[in-house]
Amino acid sequence: MKNMVYIQSGGPTSVINSSLYGAFKEACLHPDEIDHIYGSLNGVEGLIEGRLFDLKDEDEKEIELLKQTPGAALGTTRRKLPNDINDPVYGLILENIKKFEIKYVFVNGGNDSMDTCNLLSQLCEKLKLDVCVIGVPKTIDNDLACTDHTLGYGSAAKAVINEIYALSKDALCFKKGKVHIVEVMGRNAGWLTAAADLVPEDGHPDLIYLPENEFDVDDFVEKVKAVADKHNGSGIVVVSEGVRFEREESAEVDAFGHKQLSGTGAALAKILLNRAGIQSRVVELSLTQRANPFLISKNDRDEAIKIGELSVKAALRGETAKMTIVKRVSNEPLKLEYEMAPVSLVANAERKIPQEMMYDDTRMSDSFREYVRPLIQGDIAPICKDGIVQLTTFKKKLVK
Amino acid sequence: MKNMVYIQSGGPTSVINSSLYGAFKEACLHPDEIDHIYGSLNGVEGLIEGRLFDLKDEDEKEIELLKQTPGAALGTTRRKLPNDINDPVYGLILENIKKFEIKYVFVNGGNDSMDTCNLLSQLCEKLKLDVCVIGVPKTIDNDLACTDHTLGYGSAAKAVINEIYALSKDALCFKKGKVHIVEVMGRNAGWLTAAADLVPEDGHPDLIYLPENEFDVDDFVEKVKAVADKHNGSGIVVVSEGVRFEREESAEVDAFGHKQLSGTGAALAKILLNRAGIQSRVVELSLTQRANPFLISKNDRDEAIKIGELSVKAALRGETAKMTIVKRVSNEPLKLEYEMAPVSLVANAERKIPQEMMYDDTRMSDSFREYVRPLIQGDIAPICKDGIVQLTTFKKKLVK
Repeated sequence: MKNMVYIQSGGPTSVINSSLYGAFKEACLHPDEIDHIYGSLNGVEGLIEGRLFDLKDEDEKEIELLKQTPGAALGTTRRKLPNDINDPVYGLILENIKKFEIKYVFVNGGNDSMDTCNLLSQLCEKLKLDVCVIGVPKTIDNDLACTDHTLGYGSAAKAVINEIYALSKDALCFKKGKVHIVEVMGRNAGWLTAAADLVPEDGHPDLIYLPENEFDVDDFVEKVKAVADKHNGSGIVVVSEGVRFEREESAEVDAFGHKQLSGTGAALAKILLNRAGIQSRVVELSLTQRANPFLISKNDRDEAIKIGELSVKAALRGETAKMTIVKRVSNEPLKLEYEMAPVSLVANAERKIPQEMMYDDTRMSDSFREYVRPLIQGDIAPICKDGIVQLTTFKKKLVK
Repeated sequence: MKNMVYIQSGGPTSVINSSLYGAFKEACLHPDEIDHIYGSLNGVEGLIEGRLFDLKDEDEKEIELLKQTPGAALGTTRRKLPNDINDPVYGLILENIKKFEIKYVFVNGGNDSMDTCNLLSQLCEKLKLDVCVIGVPKTIDNDLACTDHTLGYGSAAKAVINEIYALSKDALCFKKGKVHIVEVMGRNAGWLTAAADLVPEDGHPDLIYLPENEFDVDDFVEKVKAVADKHNGSGIVVVSEGVRFEREESAEVDAFGHKQLSGTGAALAKILLNRAGIQSRVVELSLTQRANPFLISKNDRDEAIKIGELSVKAALRGETAKMTIVKRVSNEPLKLEYEMAPVSLVANAERKIPQEMMYDDTRMSDSFREYVRPLIQGDIAPICKDGIVQLTTFKKKLVK
């Protein structure tokens, strides 16, 4: 038997399960080459602990709903594998690769997950195992190297743009308004925050702050004050959770050593009140930006499915230690080409917004808007029942 | 000339502009009785200051988009009129009623706004003016007296249910999870928070806290701890912004004397961490619950339009000091009847969730779910262009 295992890893997106869908559907077309299609429970942890379930055992309806289900349907993890491939954890992984007769491993994730993918590839290569390890790119942060954009970014950007536009209508309809500080996800790269620059003119943010730029608190207070003074207290200021400035709060650190930066908006609101007496309301878009079935971009979803399919095809060709990447051929209409790149080039690398895509330190340039526009196109009305969206729930019956 | 003026007041909803749409369309059908259809800029302030604009001057396209535009398209206010109708502000209002030859006044709002409506009615009655004042009910809080439900509640409930369901897929997909504290709007009445009980089983909140019930902090910590212990740290706890408990923060007060209670979730997260070492993530649904074109309930929107139409018809019949109310005749299919009730009965009254709709202090009963279910039905795919929703922008050219 030759089986495949699919691993979802890191923070989910609105279309992460669409890649799983594409990979599953493609794998089903090759029953002679792929027998069981296993899902690994909670990322690489499932492979370590031997907690796999067979996706062919799941209901067809639940498989179809993957295309509109946010979150990681297989479960995910933020666990990082040790750099030393002699670590005992790899022994456990090898045992399960043998036990479950795995020939194909897919790791669907962002840059930390591509590190997992890279380490698994090295392990298989070192031991000369006949196992192909393929990376399937995903992150709302759009910060992976080697690829034009990442799957999940288009939908998250679409959510950010539409949510800010809609809330602007609420935020700006009071005569004596408040400054609305909208906090957007993105620790080091501001791609998602910058998408706010595509909000139409009548709801366009007054100021946009990215982690790529130095954040000068005094200048921030001055600029916000000017906005509030001009609009009777109102304003829309979009900030990345990752902008860096001195604050009072202590920061926690997650398993990858990243600082937990929630509360950026709240910290800035406090500064505005203390230094300039400016009343503000903080709106953290939070999980609605990456878990939003109603704001999936069709382009993003279709690509996510496609990349799942192509990843399986690449594995069947015998490729390994590669990630499927996207090249943009033209903008209008959006034409893409898909290629394979060595996953080692992607692992732990971060791609930030280039300077030429910024007009100045609070506005984006035309080239940025042209870059983003095709990625948010295409609307999907998710299947609902009695006014409630239908989402995948797997039985997840573990394979013995 | 006999003109009408339409006033939007208080916090907006996703369908407040649908009532304006219905009223406008109905008024257009009676050109002999209603000449100009004025919008009052920023609630009653427009009438006080003589800042009105003619809705017939706006583009037809912008009028149509009212049906999917959140926020108050005319602008709104939280300004409360003085109880003494001899106050000079009423002199200004009377002047403008005369100047703009107003015969029909519509006040679209919640209970504070119905007080405005009531005071304006009293004024006109006292001075024996030939002016009809009609209240058009609206609030996401669903707390107006005399009516089965309020316009705006169905869409907000639909947003809360769908947003929590979608985020549950993200929140619950980590092996070692966090408690997610989801904060929902509603100062005194828990109708909107309680809607979370309609989230399907696989994403159903573990605990729901309403302002109607006494909030015991010790019991809360204990119950959340039990949830987290059972699910490896994960859990979904939905709290109304209005639950009352002792906290460190000082509370600000708005123009209506309401405490500004933002930060309930954050305060509870601090308590969980300090008392039981529980890590949590706070998700404040914030403006996405009341300003969400993608989660409008068709039933709610159609009713909002209908009530706008009926309010104009009532005014044309000569009714005054009345609010259009809704009676429920049957649940499946939803059958409603519309009547007029004296606005004085509604003004400043608050309707809370009756005890029989609660199963216990953290769960709702079947009767509550049956009550809510028809209100969230019917999906609307809003008109988008290039992936971005289209929303009304008025020119608002002031009438001299």
